Parts: sequence; structure tokens; C-alpha cells
Amino acid sequence: MSEFYDLSFYSDNSSPAHPRIMAAMQAVNEGFMGSYGSDTVSSQAREAFKELLGEGIEVFFAFNGTGANIAALGACVKRASGIVCTDVAHINCAEVGAPEKLTGARLLPQANSNGKLLPEQIDKLGAKRGNTHRVYPDVVSISQTTEMGSVYTVEELRAISSAAHRHGMAVHMDGARFANAVAALKCHPAELSGGTGIDVMCFGGTKNGFAFGEAIVFFNRGLAENFSWLHKQYLQLASKNRYIAAQFLEALKGGLWLEMAGNANIAAAYLAKCLMRIGGVKLVLPVESNILFVKAPPELARKLIAMTNANEDEGGAVRLVTSFCTTKKQIDNLMKKL
Amino acid sequence: MSEFYDLSFYSDNSSPAHPRIMAAMQAVNEGFMGSYGSDTVSSQAREAFKELLGEGIEVFFAFNGTGANIAALGACVKRASGIVCTDVAHINCAEVGAPEKLTGARLLPQANSNGKLLPEQIDKLGAKRGNTHRVYPDVVSISQTTEMGSVYTVEELRAISSAAHRHGMAVHMDGARFANAVAALKCHPAELSGGTGIDVMCFGGTKNGFAFGEAIVFFNRGLAENFSWLHKQYLQLASKNRYIAAQFLEALKGGLWLEMAGNANIAAAYLAKCLMRIGGVKLVLPVESNILFVKAPPELARKLIAMTNANEDEGGAVRLVTSFCTTKKQIDNLMKKL
Amino acid sequence: MSEFYDLSFYSDNSSPAHPRIMAAMQAVNEGFMGSYGSDTVSSQAREAFKELLGEGIEVFFAFNGTGANIAALGACVKRASGIVCTDVAHINCAEVGAPEKLTGARLLPQANSNGKLLPEQIDKLGAKRGNTHRVYPDVVSISQTTEMGSVYTVEELRAISSAAHRHGMAVHMDGARFANAVAALKCHPAELSGGTGIDVMCFGGTKNGFAFGEAIVFFNRGLAENFSWLHKQYLQLASKNRYIAAQFLEALKGGLWLEMAGNANIAAAYLAKCLMRIGGVKLVLPVESNILFVKAPPELARKLIAMTNANEDEGGAVRLVTSFCTTKKQIDNLMKKL
Amino acid sequence: MSEFYDLSFYSDNSSPAHPRIMAAMQAVNEGFMGSYGSDTVSSQAREAFKELLGEGIEVFFAFNGTGANIAALGACVKRASGIVCTDVAHINCAEVGAPEKLTGARLLPQANSNGKLLPEQIDKLGAKRGNTHRVYPDVVSISQTTEMGSVYTVEELRAISSAAHRHGMAVHMDGARFANAVAALKCHPAELSGGTGIDVMCFGGTKNGFAFGEAIVFFNRGLAENFSWLHKQYLQLASKNRYIAAQFLEALKGGLWLEMAGNANIAAAYLAKCLMRIGGVKLVLPVESNILFVKAPPELARKLIAMTNANEDEGGAVRLVTSFCTTKKQIDNLMKKL
Repeated sequence: MSEFYDLSFYSDNSSPAHPRIMAAMQAVNEGFMGSYGSDTVSSQAREAFKELLGEGIEVFFAFNGTGANIAALGACVKRASGIVCTDVAHINCAEVGAPEKLTGARLLPQANSNGKLLPEQIDKLGAKRGNTHRVYPDVVSISQTTEMGSVYTVEELRAISSAAHRHGMAVHMDGARFANAVAALKCHPAELSGGTGIDVMCFGGTKNGFAFGEAIVFFNRGLAENFSWLHKQYLQLASKNRYIAAQFLEALKGGLWLEMAGNANIAAAYLAKCLMRIGGVKLVLPVESNILFVKAPPELARKLIAMTNANEDEGGAVRLVTSFCTTKKQIDNLMKKL
Repeated sequence: MSEFYDLSFYSDNSSPAHPRIMAAMQAVNEGFMGSYGSDTVSSQAREAFKELLGEGIEVFFAFNGTGANIAALGACVKRASGIVCTDVAHINCAEVGAPEKLTGARLLPQANSNGKLLPEQIDKLGAKRGNTHRVYPDVVSISQTTEMGSVYTVEELRAISSAAHRHGMAVHMDGARFANAVAALKCHPAELSGGTGIDVMCFGGTKNGFAFGEAIVFFNRGLAENFSWLHKQYLQLASKNRYIAAQFLEALKGGLWLEMAGNANIAAAYLAKCLMRIGGVKLVLPVESNILFVKAPPELARKLIAMTNANEDEGGAVRLVTSFCTTKKQIDNLMKKL
Repeated sequence: MSEFYDLSFYSDNSSPAHPRIMAAMQAVNEGFMGSYGSDTVSSQAREAFKELLGEGIEVFFAFNGTGANIAALGACVKRASGIVCTDVAHINCAEVGAPEKLTGARLLPQANSNGKLLPEQIDKLGAKRGNTHRVYPDVVSISQTTEMGSVYTVEELRAISSAAHRHGMAVHMDGARFANAVAALKCHPAELSGGTGIDVMCFGGTKNGFAFGEAIVFFNRGLAENFSWLHKQYLQLASKNRYIAAQFLEALKGGLWLEMAGNANIAAAYLAKCLMRIGGVKLVLPVESNILFVKAPPELARKLIAMTNANEDEGGAVRLVTSFCTTKKQIDNLMKKL
Repeated sequence: MSEFYDLSFYSDNSSPAHPRIMAAMQAVNEGFMGSYGSDTVSSQAREAFKELLGEGIEVFFAFNGTGANIAALGACVKRASGIVCTDVAHINCAEVGAPEKLTGARLLPQANSNGKLLPEQIDKLGAKRGNTHRVYPDVVSISQTTEMGSVYTVEELRAISSAAHRHGMAVHMDGARFANAVAALKCHPAELSGGTGIDVMCFGGTKNGFAFGEAIVFFNRGLAENFSWLHKQYLQLASKNRYIAAQFLEALKGGLWLEMAGNANIAAAYLAKCLMRIGGVKLVLPVESNILFVKAPPELARKLIAMTNANEDEGGAVRLVTSFCTTKKQIDNLMKKL
């Protein structure tokens, strides 16, 4: 873990961009280039994604996570669609009803199991699908890593994709923290994405050391047909796309993206270890990525929140999110103050 | 005009960011900050806007021009709204139906007069408003500068606002190139915006030397009520907003924004002068900002398009857009080749 | 209870129209009349509603219950709205996501208490409203009678309206079976509607002995402003509105509407009494209107469903709905066969 | 032409229902029936449509013309769709922006040729389709008869379908006055609908002697897949569908529908003949169906409008629409008074 300043566990989006990421934007800041992704930096970034995730994909860039999710879901919805997700899904809890307003679909939030959706839940909804008075559940949306910090295994994702496809549903993966999942499982990113059978994913940048920028990756190219129109219509087509593309090019080069996510994961594990040493502090869930939920005595919880800008969830647990730049020293300092 | 590289007249969004703008992003790239615009850079940028345009405004940031327009229009629409604009308006020609899909309103495009909407056109629509079988025209959207490169005077804008308000319509100004209009008229930006009675404007950054980023400025604060929700719902709330805010802070400091737009305008005027010297070349409209439309003999038009990546419009004119970084030398070189 | 044919407890929409209702349509079937509700029959029907519910209302007609609900909710939603309702609400369970798709709002379904929403649930949502990442709960939608057959008292409705208004929320009442509630409580319909402080209601016809047709009644006239446009836009403006208006005129004349609903309620009570005599049959809830939920031994449940076209709910209870035309004899016959 | 009362040329929706149509509703007004179109009357009506238009169709019912159009268009739109229509199309002029708001598509109105769209206009739009900044024109919507009263021939419709399909566009036909077209051309309705290659049509009832009710007929069954969900979502699923179905059954029986439309056409022709005898009166277009546009001296125009509740169009012509029940005697009486 490298040295940085201040400290926030509010979210990994309160962190800055990695110096190399910023330098990469600077490096493309010369001369005229094709607009709307027709430039060479964008082409190279799309190629880099193909090297990473396989030749058969289609890649589009987006400004932010919500935008990427909406555009990707907009490509999945059909007629009177229902989108199956967990009750803690970002699309359900933190996107202000944009999925409904902008795609016209209804969310069908299901009780989560440590943040995860279960194939059985998909099967159950699939089986009831004949009722024309209810929306047609034809999209499944999962988050990897989940909003609870848990990580789906390859097998779990395969089972979800199988269940969904068995019922004719498309699978969208909100991968705002996909990097943290890959870093946690130490598997190949292609295996953990297209290899599981999912149809489309949002590949996060912002929360993983970018200034801004996400990618939408279609593994099911049928869904990508005429997506260019949706891409622009859903407000995600950057005219100066070189600045998003440059960040991805740099991140994918030499594994910087995994290094950053790995740092965040390590910081979370270390933070958990330190907090557990304090009496009365308990982890709500085992730490698998860069998000922790801890239960702490009220006084301590208040202090922790005040010092790290953390959130308290509805169940009274403190939610702590580490970033690519969170350092051992920062955590050690925090522990001293607590 | 400072020295740069290459040459494109495709659009001012094929240009890079100004070095000072890029440096400003770099300068805020340290430490944790509040997310979603709660950081100090964002506060300072909002203050800078108030200094420029008046205390009574509300400022929100956006990723791109289409996003800013949609969010601002979404704040203006009411019940079964029609949005009055010109036939050449960006919202009508270059936003893929996003206004209709995302706001639910219908555009009511009117024949343009050198790119401009006329108060009489608003009056005419206002007078016919009682018909419950047709959308209710309650929003007027104009572009300053217009898509034809013409610039509304303060008086023209006042007349439009008066006509609109007389019929209970709100006025939205797409100011993707507002800077070019201010630079052209050499008036105060407050006079040319809130001073004309408009309700909300999009204040462009991307096309004026930014990497990305726009601002939505409400002069009518009633329209801004609860806009935070729409802002996020319309996908324009950046989690790391510091990077947009820093660009605006720098641009507004010492008038860089007007210097950049002024350069683009000067380049356009110079380009026009040079082209006019060639036999058979005619300006479609007098050059008022950084967009030119010229009619040229076919062979010359083809060359011009090939060398500058320019567009041909539906009427067969060549559309040339200069940028903050277009140089005299680039134009002189081009002329030699032509 | 008058004599009719066959028997269905599937829903009160499997019943025909009352002979007087049909005759009333027949009676206006002469000559040309103004279209779109500008005819005298429509005027008279609007007046009849004012006599019944008070002078300060605005009345619009609609084709069906879902249409009336959507148009009324469309008049209530604001910016990034959430619509608070119960989990068993018709808008949540039987309108195929039309509320989301057509109004752009998100439903916020709450656990029901015997079919009812509680003021505390509204307060809780109202208190959490500052979060700009979540939809803004500014509409409350309740059903009277509820989908469980229970009936809100005047006091309960007042408490709901108070809670909602305290938080700036509008109150919509789905009154597809409002007649059954009035018949059950034997109170004045004005007291049970506008008198409780609700803003807008859908006044059901179809399920209460009509061929088709509902009314949308605004008690809050501010919400009715320019509603004519929404009314048509939401597909509820009948060009030959005389046929809907004639049904309402007849129903409101001499209390036919309450007579019909009263018959349905009596039939439900009698059916409950008869079923209770069978061993092993239990009411899920006390019978307050024309909907019963009973738990019965599997064999009996199967028979009951087969003989009356009834539904089984997700909890395994049999849902039985009586109609204005359900007769004692029909029930007695059924009991013999069971 | 049979004898009726009063007189209105405002629209064919100011007429009543034909006595046989009303009697048919009366005749099914007995006993319980399946809801939502699961009843036998609805089945029979669907079969009657198959006998008329061919076995390979899918039939759904709707409440009104706008509702039928929206639901059918909702089945046609894809991604970022544009709907090509004429500038005088009902969906463009008389549906309050419902097409945009409820389907998310943009209308692309084209200059009409005597009310008609030309294949060349489709070709032109099809050719320009690669631009991702503009909506994708993938639906063509025409009206038969047109809003100007003109009637497309079989050949003209075939040419439109061919042009549309050549570019991958679906063809929707607004057939609110389809009966008048068939009566005018004296061709087989199957030849004039599915036989021309169109994908879906709205088969009008309301304007042709019904109390209310339309049908949506899919010739392209692929578009009908899962349409049941859209049907309900777009508010067009009548719970007591027997009353719509009974009207269609009766209308299709023994050609009543063509008799009614034929009467209206004859009345229009006779009215035109009578008016032409008056000095200074001119037909704007030859009379092909039941709509006339006449230019008359101001005094006469005022009288005509006052006596028949007719409309004046934007060009100052008087629009006169005859109905199934308009009689020779009514017209003769009018002529005397004029």
C-alpha cells in the first residue's frame, strides 16, 4: 500500500485517481482527435478489453456507474420487463429510480443472501412468468462484488446464468467493483465474466482509481446490435472519449487495475483485523473485498463514523469502504485515535 | 492564437483540453474528498459561477452537453409538454430522441431564421394552446450560439423570454457554445444569460477546451427545487465531481473561458477571410462565432472536407468549426494545400 | 339479492352489467352528440358527481381501472417520485408495471396490515426523504376497499391523509370497489372520500355492475390543472363519452350504485356464513366487503375453485369475490354441490 | 341511408352506435363470463377476424383509437426508434404526444401528399439511417383512410410495405376508418390489409357505428409475441371484454361494418355534390371516403360550421365528416337552410 493523505471510508469514490491514470489522460491531451469514440485511443482501449476478456465482445464506454448500468439494462429489457435483483442492489438502492424511469422496466428486488442473488430465486420467478397481469421477468441483474462486499464465485455466477437463460432471461452484471472480485478470487477476468455465461457487464473504473469512466462490455453480441443508438440516447457517449479510453488503456496495461483493487482489498482485510482487536466489535460478514460492515458499541461507532466519514446502514452496522490508495499507516493512525 | 498540432474542423469537440484545464484536474488529484459534489472544489466552482452570473442562481454539474440538456429540460417539462425549438437545434438533430424518451415531452421544431427562433413563433404556439388533443407547449429551448453559428443579441433573448413567459413557458438555453457568444458580443455573461430572463441554461465546457464537463445553471430557482433527485436520475451526478469542478474553477479564473472561446472565434473569422479569397467560395451566413458554413465548388469542397474532417450539411454546404486551439499557422498551411 | 345465472367468484369483473345500466346506455344511443365529453350526458354525470361528493371537485371519466389509476397517479407524480402503496396493491400486483413505465415513478410497496397501509409507514418514509440517491416518496396510493377485502374507516383514511400531507405527499385512492366500502360502512360517500383529505380518487364502475367505465375525481383541484392533457395522453379520453357518462348517471340515480355494492357485500357475508359451517374451513380475515379469503382442506379447495372459477393466492387461501348479481340461490346451490 | 336525428359533421365519433351494435351488447349482458378476453364472445370475435383477414393473424381488442395505436406502435418500436408518418397523421396531430411519452420513440413527420406518405420518403429516411446521433427510423405508420379523406390503393400500400421492409422497418396502419377505405375501393379487406405486407393494423370500431372499441390485428406474428403484457400495460385490456367483442361480432356478421362505412361514404359524396352546386364552394381534394375539405366564401363557411359543428382546418378549409347514420334527408334539410 502506497502513501496517501487524509482518510475516508465513505466510499471508494471519495478517493482520487491513481497518478498513472491521471498521467495517462495528460498524455493524450494533444492535438485533434476523432470525436465520439472514433479516435485511436478509444480503438486501442477497445482492443485492450478484447485481449483481456476475449475477441467476441463489444465494448462501449460510459461516464459513470449509474449511466453504464442504465444503458446496459436498456439493452436487455424487452416488453413489460421485470429486472430481478437483490434488495441491496445499487440499481435498487442508489440510482433514484432511474432504472424504472429511463428503461420503463420494473425492478423485482429479492431478499439477498449475504448480498447475493440465488439461482432458486430466479427459477421461482421464471416459473410464475405466465401471468399477464405482472411484469415479465426477463432480466437478471447482479453486482460483482456485491453491495455487501461479498464475492460471487465462478460457479455461483454460472449457476445464475444457467438459471436465467433457462427462463429466457438476460444477465447483466454491475461490475462497479469487478476488479475487487477478480483480485479477491485471483481468477482470470475472462473466466469470471463472459466465461460464466453472463450477457453484459459494466466494468467499473471510477471506484477503482479513475477520475471517471466505466465500460459496458457485451458478451452476447446480439444485445449489442444497434446499441450505438441507445448508448448516445442514454447520455453515455462522450464526445472527447479519448479521456475515458486513456484511463482504461493505462489501467489494463501491466495489471494496474488489479493492483489498485488488490490494494483496496488488502486494506480492508487489515482494517478488519485491527478493528476485531477492539472489544465489542464484530464483523457482520466475512471480509471478501474492499467493503466491511461492522457492529460496534455506540460510542465507538460514532467515533469511527466521524473520523472516516463512514455510513451507518439501516441495521445499525457501520459500512467501511477502502480504496486503492488506503494505506496501512492511515489505518494504524486511525486505530491509535480510536 | 497559440500553437497546436494537426487540424480538424469537424467540431470543437475534436480538440483536446487546454493545458491549464488539464493541470487543474491534476492539481485536485490528491487525497480523499466528499463524493457527489460535496467536496470543496465543487463548492468553490459553484461560488465562482455565482460571482460570474449572480448570487441568485443554483448550479449543478453534468458530464456532457446532451446530459446537461436533458436534465435541464427534465426540470422544465410539466404535463404533456411540448418543447419549442428550431429545426436545427441540437436537441432535435443530434440527441437521438433522448429528449422525448427521457423527459416524455415532444419537440416542436420550428423553421429557423439563420439558426434562430423568433418570438413570433412562440406567440403563435402560445395562442393555439387550448387544444387538448395536442401537446402543451410550455418550454422554449434555444441554443446560444446557434447551431448555424449565429449569435442571439441580448435584446433578441429578452424578446424570446418575454414571449415565452407571456404564455407561461419556461426558457432553456443550450449554451454548449455560450462562451463563443459572450466572446462575440463582448457583453457581460450575466447580462446575456439571467439578465435576459431565461430560466435555466447549460453552460458548456467540453467544446470550449475541457476534457469533459458542463454546468446546469438555474436562474429560476423554483425550477431547481428538488432538482438534486433529477440530477442523479438523469445520470449527471459525478461521484468524483472534483474533476469537473476543477476545470470550471480554472476556466472561470482570469477569464480563461473567454480567452479560449475568443481564440476559436478569431480563428473562424480568419478562416472565413482566407476562404473568401478563393474563387467560387461563398459564406452561407456571416461569421459571428466559431462555426462557418461555406459553399464551394465541388472539387474544393471535397478537398476541404478531406483535409479538415469537416461535415457537409444537407444543403451541400461545408460546416467548419474552429476550436480554442486552432492556430493562424494551421489555417495558413491549409490554405497553401488548397 | 336478485336472480341471475351461472356463478363465478373469480372477480366482480366476470359479472355482466346491471340491466338498468345497460338500458341507460341504450337510452342515450340516439343522434349526434359532442365528442370527448362535451356532450350533455357527460355534463349531467359530472354534475351528479358534484351532488354526491361536493361542489369543489373536478371529474374525468376513464375506460378501465388500471387506466384510471395510471392517469390519476400521473397527475400526482413530481420529480423522481416514489409511490407508497401496500405490497398487495392492485398497482403493484396487477398492472404489469404500467405505473413505472407510464408515469416514470417507482412503487414503494410496504408490508400490508390486513390489506391496509399504516400512517406510521408513511411517516417512516417521509422522515428518510433527504437522500438524493433514492426516489422521493411524494405520493401515497391506497385501495378502498383493499385487495384483501378489508375496509378503511373514515378515521383511518384521515390519519393516512394527515401523515401524507405532513410530508408533502399527495394521496391517491384506488376506489375500484369504493362502493363496497361505502355500503359496508353505511357512511356518506363524501365523508369517506374528500372528507378524509385525500387528493384524488378513482371511482369504480366496471366491478360494480357497469359494462365498462370509471371516474377520476379530484378533490385537490390544483392537481387537476391541465389534467385534460394528461387525460388524453394516458389514453382515457373516450370520444363517445356519453356511454360511460350514462352508466354513471344511472348508477348514481336513486342509489343504484350502493344497492349493487350492497348486494355483493351481503352475498359475501352469506357465502362466508355457509362456508364456515363446513368443517375445516376458516376465514383468513373477517369479511367486510365482497372479497373473502378462506383456507379449506385441499379437496374442498380444489372443488370450490373448480366450481366457481376462484383463484388461489400465494399463501394457499382461496379468494372468492361476489358480485352485484350473486344470489342466495346460487350460493345455496353451490353449498349443496360441495 | 337510413333515417336518424340531428346533424353533426364534427367527426364520425359524434354519432351514436348502430342499433344492431347496441343490441349486440345487450345480448351478451347475461351471466358471468371469463374476464380479460377469456370469454366465449371474445373467442368468437377473434375467430370472426380470422375468417375475414386470414388464419395467420393475432387479434387483441382495445378501448379507443389512440389506445390501439399506442399499443400497436409499442409493439413495433425497437431501440431509439423513429416512427415515420405524415404531418397530418392522427398520431402526430391528435394524440397529445402519447406516442413519444408512452413508447419512447420520436415521430418523424413527413410532408403529406393528399394525406399520403410516399415510398420515396421512406427510402430517403432508410438511406440516412447510419447516423447514431439521430433516431433510428424503424417504424412506418400510415392511416387508411388518411386524415385528408384520401384512400391508399392496394398498390400504394404494397409499395409502402416494400419500401419499409427493404430498410428493416415495420409497418403500422392506423385503420380507424379502414372500413371506409374498403367500402370505397370495394376490394377484399384481407387484400387491403395483410395482403399488402403491413405488419400490424388498428381496425376501427368507434368511428364506424360502435359505442367504443377497436381491434389490434397482427399480420406479423413475431411482433405479437408476448404482446399480452404490452396490451395490459398500455391500458387496453378490458376486464369485461365481452362488450367490445360483441360489437365486433355483430359488425362483421353479414357485412354490417361495410354497410355502415358505405353509408358514410355515400353521404359524403352526396354532400359534396350538393355543396358544389353552391357558387364559390370548392373541394380541396376529390371525395374518396367520408371526409371532405371544402373552401367556401366566408359567410357560407361560418354558417356551415355553425349548423354542423364542423371544424375549420389551419388552411381555412371546412372539414366535414359524415357518419354511418348521416341521411340524405339531413343533407337536403341542411342545403335548404344554407
